[in-house]
Amino acid sequence: MALARLKGFEKLTNVDEALSIFLKALKPKRLGSVNVHIEEALGRVNAKTINSPIDLPSFDRSAVDGYAVRAKDTFEASQFKPKTLQLTNTDRVGEGKAKQAWTGNPMPKGADAVIMLEHTKAVKAGIEVFAALTLGENVSQRGEDLHKGDVVVESGTRLQAHHIGLLAALGISHITVVEKPKIAILSTGNELVELGKEPQPNQIIDSNRYIIAGLIAELGAQPLNLGLARDNQPEIGAKISKGLAKADVVVTTGGTSVGAADLVPIVINKLGKPGVVVHGVALRPGMPTALAVLRGKPVFVLSGYPVAATVGFEVFARPVILKLLGIEHEPRPMLNAKLTRRVSGVLGRRVYLRVNVLRRENDFFAEPVRTKGSGLLTTMTRANGYVIIPEDREGLEQGETVVVHLFAPIGGT
Amino acid sequence: MALARLKGFEKLTNVDEALSIFLKALKPKRLGSVNVHIEEALGRVNAKTINSPIDLPSFDRSAVDGYAVRAKDTFEASQFKPKTLQLTNTDRVGEGKAKQAWTGNPMPKGADAVIMLEHTKAVKAGIEVFAALTLGENVSQRGEDLHKGDVVVESGTRLQAHHIGLLAALGISHITVVEKPKIAILSTGNELVELGKEPQPNQIIDSNRYIIAGLIAELGAQPLNLGLARDNQPEIGAKISKGLAKADVVVTTGGTSVGAADLVPIVINKLGKPGVVVHGVALRPGMPTALAVLRGKPVFVLSGYPVAATVGFEVFARPVILKLLGIEHEPRPMLNAKLTRRVSGVLGRRVYLRVNVLRRENDFFAEPVRTKGSGLLTTMTRANGYVIIPEDREGLEQGETVVVHLFAPIGGT
Repeated sequence: MALARLKGFEKLTNVDEALSIFLKALKPKRLGSVNVHIEEALGRVNAKTINSPIDLPSFDRSAVDGYAVRAKDTFEASQFKPKTLQLTNTDRVGEGKAKQAWTGNPMPKGADAVIMLEHTKAVKAGIEVFAALTLGENVSQRGEDLHKGDVVVESGTRLQAHHIGLLAALGISHITVVEKPKIAILSTGNELVELGKEPQPNQIIDSNRYIIAGLIAELGAQPLNLGLARDNQPEIGAKISKGLAKADVVVTTGGTSVGAADLVPIVINKLGKPGVVVHGVALRPGMPTALAVLRGKPVFVLSGYPVAATVGFEVFARPVILKLLGIEHEPRPMLNAKLTRRVSGVLGRRVYLRVNVLRRENDFFAEPVRTKGSGLLTTMTRANGYVIIPEDREGLEQGETVVVHLFAPIGGT
Repeated sequence: MALARLKGFEKLTNVDEALSIFLKALKPKRLGSVNVHIEEALGRVNAKTINSPIDLPSFDRSAVDGYAVRAKDTFEASQFKPKTLQLTNTDRVGEGKAKQAWTGNPMPKGADAVIMLEHTKAVKAGIEVFAALTLGENVSQRGEDLHKGDVVVESGTRLQAHHIGLLAALGISHITVVEKPKIAILSTGNELVELGKEPQPNQIIDSNRYIIAGLIAELGAQPLNLGLARDNQPEIGAKISKGLAKADVVVTTGGTSVGAADLVPIVINKLGKPGVVVHGVALRPGMPTALAVLRGKPVFVLSGYPVAATVGFEVFARPVILKLLGIEHEPRPMLNAKLTRRVSGVLGRRVYLRVNVLRRENDFFAEPVRTKGSGLLTTMTRANGYVIIPEDREGLEQGETVVVHLFAPIGGT
């Protein structure tokens, strides 16, 4: 690569190294927490490991529809030699007795097993039992789901429907969840206009803000809009400072290539230390990404190109925002799929290839989305996942099994 | 199966047949739509196919960093015989001229190609060009992303970050999205108490409501809480009627087994026609599920057992709610994984097996979650997906490749 190409950054940093340098400079810590009712907790991140205050279930119960009995009263019963037990309606099952018990009913006192309806026959004297039971057979034991003290939900877990249900079952109505990271978004560039204004010839409407805001919301964080900044240092500096004052993270798009308007990294370095710690990453798309730290907060300086900005966000901002949420690892859904055609990589760069995964019976195929550049938004809306072409591969072969990271549902049958 | 077992339902209906009978009785239609700003549209479902009002990009632009030139001025240039072009700053590139153009810059008039920085050298007279260009080389053509009239987002698409960004880029600030289905949830059972109250011995706190509400919210619908009903017909009837009056869908849990308290289907059949169209499904867990139609609205009568209720919801309520949203098909993320041990199925029943998928390098393994019953909530929180064991399989083999439907992130490395 010719020297002229590199005036903005001395060299391209390997992706893993870039993230490592950045995390070392940033030392991200989980944000504070807030107490909420469990009805408000769906999708939030649990801030404190919760242990069960009780046994669940809190009493022995029948696991089937049938009759609660004493196991030893059935010991000699068989299909050919049934034993007859008398029905009782009291709270206690004595010797030779049986009490109807539907699935989930508490076990009456004295009973220690449940005979399934199918293995009984109603007779005048009560029921005939056609099978021998072992002690505890067909009984859900107290504490079978959780014992008192067992871990219910670990800290750092994103709460889904069943976590909430389990908390309710334990009588836990309020929990502490991690605060939503506030993430300020700034779009820079003289060519940009706000949505709602009529673009003049050669102007374009800012779309990055909406993409980044969407990606932030999908992570369970809160986007804050800093609007547009023109390509001038005081304006960019003022808006980044405003973002740092009211948000936990700042994301900018535009003004980071080696082109004429490579202003954002310059401005950041004037705002404080350490400033930009990585500029230029061996990543495609997303090469001009810069990573900075100001006032202890992360600043992600992403390309003005929507797809490049998306990949820069995915690779660097996503894991850091997850760390602020207290989540160490939350991969997108993944799967193995067969690549439908050969694609080229770039030795020394990590390439994010957009693909469309289709299901055919029980096989999955990944069709690379044809694209000419990182400016084409439709390459994202036509894709449902990405495949990483590693730095040491010149390309991926047709028919090769690749790991796809999904961001939209799989089509096909 | 003994006849005694079946007093609640004559026979178990096959899952596909049950859904088909139900859809025939219901004829679900997409709900109405509402106009929203695109900032409010993330996760909503597009109600009307949108065509592009313009070409995107709306002008030719440079696809690289370099110089905009006339291709024919470079025709004889090579590494050994560079051609010299004069720089211009005007809006027009004449013969023998070149104008600096950063990626994304509009093409100046007269120019029809861009020479990459790497293939030039700055000299006193202007630049030396070391490569010949073809017409249009390194130019992003107007309309390359979308031509005027092209489909931008199909009706029935759930809107993600990049759809929103694309709409913004086109200057579309408002769109119509499908109304959120309102779904009323009723928990029935004498044994239930509300979260926040101290359960007496043998009572349990209602957790199904929270699970179902979470599953509803995850689909982009709106849960409405009908509270608890005791096992008595007037109370259940009144609450279901209330649900039908204010919601698009009613979901009940409990009171549907063949047990003593099999009241909900009875009440529904008294409320109107056609009432219950399916009761008892060859599904495990979830066998006692009933499907009903009242006032043209779907009523899902699910088991009181959390996991059985979840599976009943997944199999029957989820696809119907998606249809109300105008979505024909939205599978959960799927993947192929190797089963780590043999599991039993039940001939003639469709079994939903909870598994925990782990990644080891680029291989995926599905570990069946050990469980004794459909009452155990922790089998859901310990799982991240399910595997369907079809009706015609006695079981699945260790090492067999199965399709896993994911509902939580994959662990491992």
